[in-house]
Amino acid sequence: MSKYQHIQQEAYEANMQLPKLGLVLFTFGNVSAADRSLGVFAIKPSGVAYEDLTPGKMVIVDFEGKTVEGDLRPSSDTLTHAVLYKHWEKIGGIVHTHSTYATSWAQSQRDIPIFGTTHADYNTVDIPCAPPMSDEMIQGNYEHETGFQIMNCFAAKGLSYEEVEMVLVGNHAPFTWGKNAAKAVHNSAVLEQVAQMALLTEQINPKAPRLKDALIRKHYERKHGPDSYYGQ
Amino acid sequence: MSKYQHIQQEAYEANMQLPKLGLVLFTFGNVSAADRSLGVFAIKPSGVAYEDLTPGKMVIVDFEGKTVEGDLRPSSDTLTHAVLYKHWEKIGGIVHTHSTYATSWAQSQRDIPIFGTTHADYNTVDIPCAPPMSDEMIQGNYEHETGFQIMNCFAAKGLSYEEVEMVLVGNHAPFTWGKNAAKAVHNSAVLEQVAQMALLTEQINPKAPRLKDALIRKHYERKHGPDSYYGQ
Amino acid sequence: MSKYQHIQQEAYEANMQLPKLGLVLFTFGNVSAADRSLGVFAIKPSGVAYEDLTPGKMVIVDFEGKTVEGDLRPSSDTLTHAVLYKHWEKIGGIVHTHSTYATSWAQSQRDIPIFGTTHADYNTVDIPCAPPMSDEMIQGNYEHETGFQIMNCFAAKGLSYEEVEMVLVGNHAPFTWGKNAAKAVHNSAVLEQVAQMALLTEQINPKAPRLKDALIRKHYERKHGPDSYYGQ
Amino acid sequence: MSKYQHIQQEAYEANMQLPKLGLVLFTFGNVSAADRSLGVFAIKPSGVAYEDLTPGKMVIVDFEGKTVEGDLRPSSDTLTHAVLYKHWEKIGGIVHTHSTYATSWAQSQRDIPIFGTTHADYNTVDIPCAPPMSDEMIQGNYEHETGFQIMNCFAAKGLSYEEVEMVLVGNHAPFTWGKNAAKAVHNSAVLEQVAQMALLTEQINPKAPRLKDALIRKHYERKHGPDSYYGQ
Repeated sequence: MSKYQHIQQEAYEANMQLPKLGLVLFTFGNVSAADRSLGVFAIKPSGVAYEDLTPGKMVIVDFEGKTVEGDLRPSSDTLTHAVLYKHWEKIGGIVHTHSTYATSWAQSQRDIPIFGTTHADYNTVDIPCAPPMSDEMIQGNYEHETGFQIMNCFAAKGLSYEEVEMVLVGNHAPFTWGKNAAKAVHNSAVLEQVAQMALLTEQINPKAPRLKDALIRKHYERKHGPDSYYGQ
Repeated sequence: MSKYQHIQQEAYEANMQLPKLGLVLFTFGNVSAADRSLGVFAIKPSGVAYEDLTPGKMVIVDFEGKTVEGDLRPSSDTLTHAVLYKHWEKIGGIVHTHSTYATSWAQSQRDIPIFGTTHADYNTVDIPCAPPMSDEMIQGNYEHETGFQIMNCFAAKGLSYEEVEMVLVGNHAPFTWGKNAAKAVHNSAVLEQVAQMALLTEQINPKAPRLKDALIRKHYERKHGPDSYYGQ
Repeated sequence: MSKYQHIQQEAYEANMQLPKLGLVLFTFGNVSAADRSLGVFAIKPSGVAYEDLTPGKMVIVDFEGKTVEGDLRPSSDTLTHAVLYKHWEKIGGIVHTHSTYATSWAQSQRDIPIFGTTHADYNTVDIPCAPPMSDEMIQGNYEHETGFQIMNCFAAKGLSYEEVEMVLVGNHAPFTWGKNAAKAVHNSAVLEQVAQMALLTEQINPKAPRLKDALIRKHYERKHGPDSYYGQ
Repeated sequence: MSKYQHIQQEAYEANMQLPKLGLVLFTFGNVSAADRSLGVFAIKPSGVAYEDLTPGKMVIVDFEGKTVEGDLRPSSDTLTHAVLYKHWEKIGGIVHTHSTYATSWAQSQRDIPIFGTTHADYNTVDIPCAPPMSDEMIQGNYEHETGFQIMNCFAAKGLSYEEVEMVLVGNHAPFTWGKNAAKAVHNSAVLEQVAQMALLTEQINPKAPRLKDALIRKHYERKHGPDSYYGQ
């Protein structure tokens, strides 16, 4: 029995949520789950259909992006996952999808404005869209650089990855993360919903104002603050 | 056997309709069912997934918002429900969701214009959008004040909660109600449908006129007037 | 055994297609099926949920709108069906829905422009939108007058109900018909699809031209002309 | 046992994917599968509902469009398939649908701009929209000419059918192809997704820029180039 079985199982279950939540067409997405004590993560193999996945097919990769165990080639986005795990030390799961609305915002190269409490239940700021990468980064180690592009965007905007668990990569698509793979998948579904409602809001009222600060703070705090009273 | 079992069952069944009708993602919604002779209502526990709900998990709360029976923490929106039950004496059920189209209208801070007979089958007026709350209200007893914000909106517009059973809370999301929980859920689904068609109507014809008075009265009366002839 | 059983069965089966095709929310629709030799039609009872329908619940009504057999009250739109059956003598089935996109066009009070071959496979003209009725018609025998409003629209535009089997009633919603109830339901689904694509076409290209005449004639003829070669 | 059974089975399975992927209403689509050694293809019979299809109902047609085996009339679009198989010698499967978003772009007579990496994973160029056909072509051998219209469009734009496996026919709808029927269906679903996201992108940002060249090349190469590293 592999000593990585627990994260293979976690990554498998989280990957299988993507089609159920309507977040992927074919193989346009991948989830990974990390075990920090072992310094590795389990990730979906590249181009394998969701209906053919099994826990044992999840590939084990270290934080440098080197495959540690597994017969299949890991997701082509593996190096982006590796960079984020290496530098953002409290992340336990990462998701990448091409979900319809979030990807459309990424293609439009705009941050998603904070228009309502659904957004504020998760973030106190607009959801950031990292600018498209430079030609040099693209022609270099592309997936590796994608990770740095995300981190640079957070640094430039003064954001914390522990508070904002989602990003759009300009011209490309969203990445989300969380304490574990299930939470990262949860964030992907929330992002897609928030992305759709932000577009509809602008269509209904092109001058819709951003959410007022008091409401942003209230909704975020009641779910995440020291005196939170949401959930059990 | 709890003496509240009948409203727990009613609240449970109504809550389970929300995901079936496509009105909620994850736990973004809650339904309550009241027994006015007992002076209490049963409401969904906070943050519990719909697939994990049972009738016995519904929390019993009085009209001041005090938990009367139940091991779990009630919905974070419980105080809004309590205020509405206390002041609007003929309500038997209340629903709160973040359904996609109704929430987008709430975020846009616009009333939903009455464009057709689908709308007029339920309301003779635009569906009201209460303005965002003042910073004071938000920083005070927020969910309690949300109830008052809704009532203030109805008072300012001269609306009756017995005739108009739905409202948008600006920047936030919809609330609906009715004689019982099932009718309140029904109204949530109707509101979502009317909200979607109003947006599409404005996209097809930005100058689409509001429904003429004769048609508004006719459709409302044939369903709700003294000589109604809809249904059995 | 009722001598109307065959049209009750036909109407029942056609009604049950509406929720399957996503054309109705709750009870927002009704189908009827006529037997012209008996001079009657079977129609859905008013306000009864689709899951509670049975063939025996279909109400038998004559072409004056008088109930001939059945314990339940027929659809509130029954008189509109009766008028169309009485005056358009080759119709065997009629459908009324509040389907999302077709209803939005009706609310916008615009004909649906013929933009492509999907539309031309069924109609050589824009799908007509009858203007909202006069206050006199609304305050008179409303549902009866709705039938006349539809016929007046066809007369004013020089359309044949045998060629164009669908109409939008301004501010209200669509009606479709056909040689039998199944064909009328088919037309409702096609109308909804065409309505959605026409809106999207205008969003992609606000100056999208109408379909050229040669293509309109070609697609209509290959499906409906004397030398048609579509189907078996 | 027919010597065409293998392509009948392939065509049958590919046709049955269309409703599962949400790409067709009723019979608005068809797939064919070719055997080049035998010089024929199997194609859906015209106007037969998907639930009534069987492998044995697939009609065998040669590259001139002549039926070789089968009791049913082949799809009305058969000649378009035949022309493409005859002239584009590496195609093994063809799909035609009236899928919602791709058809709306065809009706708008615009190429689909390349806005993101989802698009670039499949094409390095905008997805071409062939102009509507001349009246002469329409009144001549229409479906035959549709094939030539597609080939003319590729010639005029300097595109290779081996690289770009999808096209919109102006005012009509999309065609896709591939090495076999399954790949052609895959391309139809990808086209529909890319078409929807391109519309949403323009709605979010009417000035959204096209994807930069470095990113187009990177994404296409990593999936299709000599050093591709996507998949197993």
